Amino acid sequence: MGLCQTRAGESPKIPNSLKDVTKIALSGDEKTTCLSHQDEIKKLFPHLFGQPILTATSGVCGKKMCIGVVLSGGQAAGGHNVIAGLFDALKTFDKGSDLIGFLGGPGGIVDGQYVTLTEDMIAPYRNQGGFDMIGSGRVKIESDEQLQKSKAVIEKLGLDGLVVIGGDDSNTNAAVLAEYMKGFPVVGVPKTIDGDLQNAFVQISFGFDTATKIYSEMIGNICRDALSAKKYYHFIKLMGRSASHVALECALKTHPNYTCISEERRGLFEIVDEIAEMIEKRAKEGKNYGVILIPEGLIEFMPEMEALIKESASGDFSEKSNQLLEKLPGTIRDQLLRDRDPHGNVQVSHIQTEKLILHMVNAKINSVEHFFGYEGRCGLPSHFDANYCYALGLNAAVILAHDKSGYMSCITNLKAPVQQWEPAALPITSLLNMEERHGKMKPVIQKALVALDGEPYKRFAAARERWKYADDYAYPGPIQFYGGHSESTPKILVE
Amino acid sequence: MGLCQTRAGESPKIPNSLKDVTKIALSGDEKTTCLSHQDEIKKLFPHLFGQPILTATSGVCGKKMCIGVVLSGGQAAGGHNVIAGLFDALKTFDKGSDLIGFLGGPGGIVDGQYVTLTEDMIAPYRNQGGFDMIGSGRVKIESDEQLQKSKAVIEKLGLDGLVVIGGDDSNTNAAVLAEYMKGFPVVGVPKTIDGDLQNAFVQISFGFDTATKIYSEMIGNICRDALSAKKYYHFIKLMGRSASHVALECALKTHPNYTCISEERRGLFEIVDEIAEMIEKRAKEGKNYGVILIPEGLIEFMPEMEALIKESASGDFSEKSNQLLEKLPGTIRDQLLRDRDPHGNVQVSHIQTEKLILHMVNAKINSVEHFFGYEGRCGLPSHFDANYCYALGLNAAVILAHDKSGYMSCITNLKAPVQQWEPAALPITSLLNMEERHGKMKPVIQKALVALDGEPYKRFAAARERWKYADDYAYPGPIQFYGGHSESTPKILVE
Repeated sequence: MGLCQTRAGESPKIPNSLKDVTKIALSGDEKTTCLSHQDEIKKLFPHLFGQPILTATSGVCGKKMCIGVVLSGGQAAGGHNVIAGLFDALKTFDKGSDLIGFLGGPGGIVDGQYVTLTEDMIAPYRNQGGFDMIGSGRVKIESDEQLQKSKAVIEKLGLDGLVVIGGDDSNTNAAVLAEYMKGFPVVGVPKTIDGDLQNAFVQISFGFDTATKIYSEMIGNICRDALSAKKYYHFIKLMGRSASHVALECALKTHPNYTCISEERRGLFEIVDEIAEMIEKRAKEGKNYGVILIPEGLIEFMPEMEALIKESASGDFSEKSNQLLEKLPGTIRDQLLRDRDPHGNVQVSHIQTEKLILHMVNAKINSVEHFFGYEGRCGLPSHFDANYCYALGLNAAVILAHDKSGYMSCITNLKAPVQQWEPAALPITSLLNMEERHGKMKPVIQKALVALDGEPYKRFAAARERWKYADDYAYPGPIQFYGGHSESTPKILVE
Repeated sequence: MGLCQTRAGESPKIPNSLKDVTKIALSGDEKTTCLSHQDEIKKLFPHLFGQPILTATSGVCGKKMCIGVVLSGGQAAGGHNVIAGLFDALKTFDKGSDLIGFLGGPGGIVDGQYVTLTEDMIAPYRNQGGFDMIGSGRVKIESDEQLQKSKAVIEKLGLDGLVVIGGDDSNTNAAVLAEYMKGFPVVGVPKTIDGDLQNAFVQISFGFDTATKIYSEMIGNICRDALSAKKYYHFIKLMGRSASHVALECALKTHPNYTCISEERRGLFEIVDEIAEMIEKRAKEGKNYGVILIPEGLIEFMPEMEALIKESASGDFSEKSNQLLEKLPGTIRDQLLRDRDPHGNVQVSHIQTEKLILHMVNAKINSVEHFFGYEGRCGLPSHFDANYCYALGLNAAVILAHDKSGYMSCITNLKAPVQQWEPAALPITSLLNMEERHGKMKPVIQKALVALDGEPYKRFAAARERWKYADDYAYPGPIQFYGGHSESTPKILVE
């Protein structure tokens, strides 16, 4: 029996506050608003707008229910445990309760593709990575037709509620569906390895811990290899969309020589010059090796590239942008000018930022490029993610048992031992503002970027100059499930 | 304190046979020969040729010695433990013994760059990955000048012996130096993640276990991601030089849909057709995803590519090769025709085989390419590698204490529990044959390739058709150091 099989038979740790899900009331009186654009949001969400934040008190909870669950968007370790927690709570409420898993993501709701989950089906997926039990997908339930179809499927199945496990957009769409169905209970669960779904009640989204631990294992190994071989510069691009939380977390765990933080909004040439200077100074010390981390979203935040990408929509480039285009390597120019998504937008995530920077640095070095992404999304969930997700699932069931709608399942106090974690329910509308998407103003959850006045960034900023030259690499090693190193929380977690 | 720091404070398990290094005699009477070219090898190694294989019996061992140690070539997890084992045995023999570490690889011997190792220096490197304690390098001590200089340094330091930790070529060169110094005690230690240094006494080289466990963790995660997202084909190239041991081991651990085994010597078009057929059949089952493993050395074994590479030395291509060249993508053609090493040879390891195959398969699929290599060389050594290397180091000290020269330190019975492992000493000359290197015949250790009539390959061959379609992926997860999953041996180990 392998490690994964053993983990499937083990029980997550459960917070004291969720040990008996039948004895939980939810309370909260203070009305919420939203991030901005209050009038527009209020108009779009007449049923949901203004609901209070709810916390757990003792009371009575549970009834026979039929609940649907769907996984939305990219994989994140722990998704299966959200489903397991939800299932176990529903069966604790009433053995006759049912959990229906929609297949292949939100498209499964629209098309009525589903399976009724049983203990036998869930058992092998407990504490496992991946989303393969019921699959996931990127369909967004947004159009009238999709909403109508979804409503019909939900009504035909006689669902008492729906749990949407997804990132910022999926949670927004969960609220849209709840509103469309006039307060039908829909609960969102904050999932994304990117860590950009963060707020006072979501200290971190699930999957971030496992992914960054896996990336940091690899980065640490590569730091050690660089220091041993003493002849390669490793340029490592990290998955994580626009925000740099993944890169920041990995930097705090491994201390590479240089880490770009997109949110600093530094120019391409500023970054390139700084890296070139570091390489030159290190060469003078006889150090022709190093490790450089590059967040996936870096170029979106570079002022000159931002302008160029904007102008590329019309093809009408300013003189400055034309000059920049000339300096870029051909492959990158092609990616900027030719590769477009179906909406005509530049596919920023396709641009090989690591190659761009390496090319522009133009130093005589041996270089190796890496991209760490898919390796980290489906790993065996760390204890943190396994416990966190199971608690998120239990809490989602509690919220639904109280017929609440448009809420996000939250677990707070995550830096404390699991026993002291606390459940809460956060109105999704309270996180919304209006932003332009493909030319239209839409209600969306604002992405949480790395705060340059925040504690995690400050710790990084205080050490970055030393890391450039001191080779103060750290080697976190592989995720452990037994022994003294199996419990740890992300470094960017702040109270 | 992190996992690595904790591991530094822990003791490897020691085989019963090596528990008291002061009570070991080495015996063996049967003269050895060599792999082939007996006359040439005998002439080149008059002092070393024909020595017997030695096994441990009880006796008396140990004296005050000054020993040098050097790390040679690419990193492999466990190198630091070879040094720790060697150090501990030397200090057990006599507290006044010294261990001198040559810096930056064999070049450190030639140039007299070294450091005298102390317990304080070694302590933080116990059970750690990397070669960073004393560094490594790829200088080969081959020329008369290098041999002379090395001899002078060794004599100046008053060394009683030298331990060379390296792969096939480094072990050959260890014998060359021992011979040059007329039987001065030199011991080799079998290191390489590639697994191509294997024989009756070296069931596996050290570092292979850790590297393949790390690659398999990542491959397993990617298999799970493929099965969850259901939209990507992942083409994963694996480090490992010519032989396919790494790919075979990873395949046995993770069951990907397709694994190329170079030693099958199949043609490019045969492989491409088979992959294309699999992709088509899977598509008919609605499966537009999968995982394909490609060993680094694949194209060296493809008959038509082999011919092309050979002809590229003269630039005089056969019609067949010209036709092939036309079918290859431009980047690959460039790599074949332009990229040359200083000897004018095609740099086979630079050729992007994964891109070549993906291009030739020419299927309408979403593909992601990966290369796993550097991530696995410097990982925290698995218990297997940590224990194995420490034992190899203890045994190297025993061999030197008996004034033996030109031997490889071997530990056998590796599938049994550590307690039952057995030390041995194998004459390096017994592994030699003559092969052409850069136009000259040289004595070399023949690289061990995957045996197509061997047990590990047969297990793979029996399952490969099922793995193509059944998605029977396995997810080994990260290396564990505590609990029930911390002890395991490579799957390709046979008795």
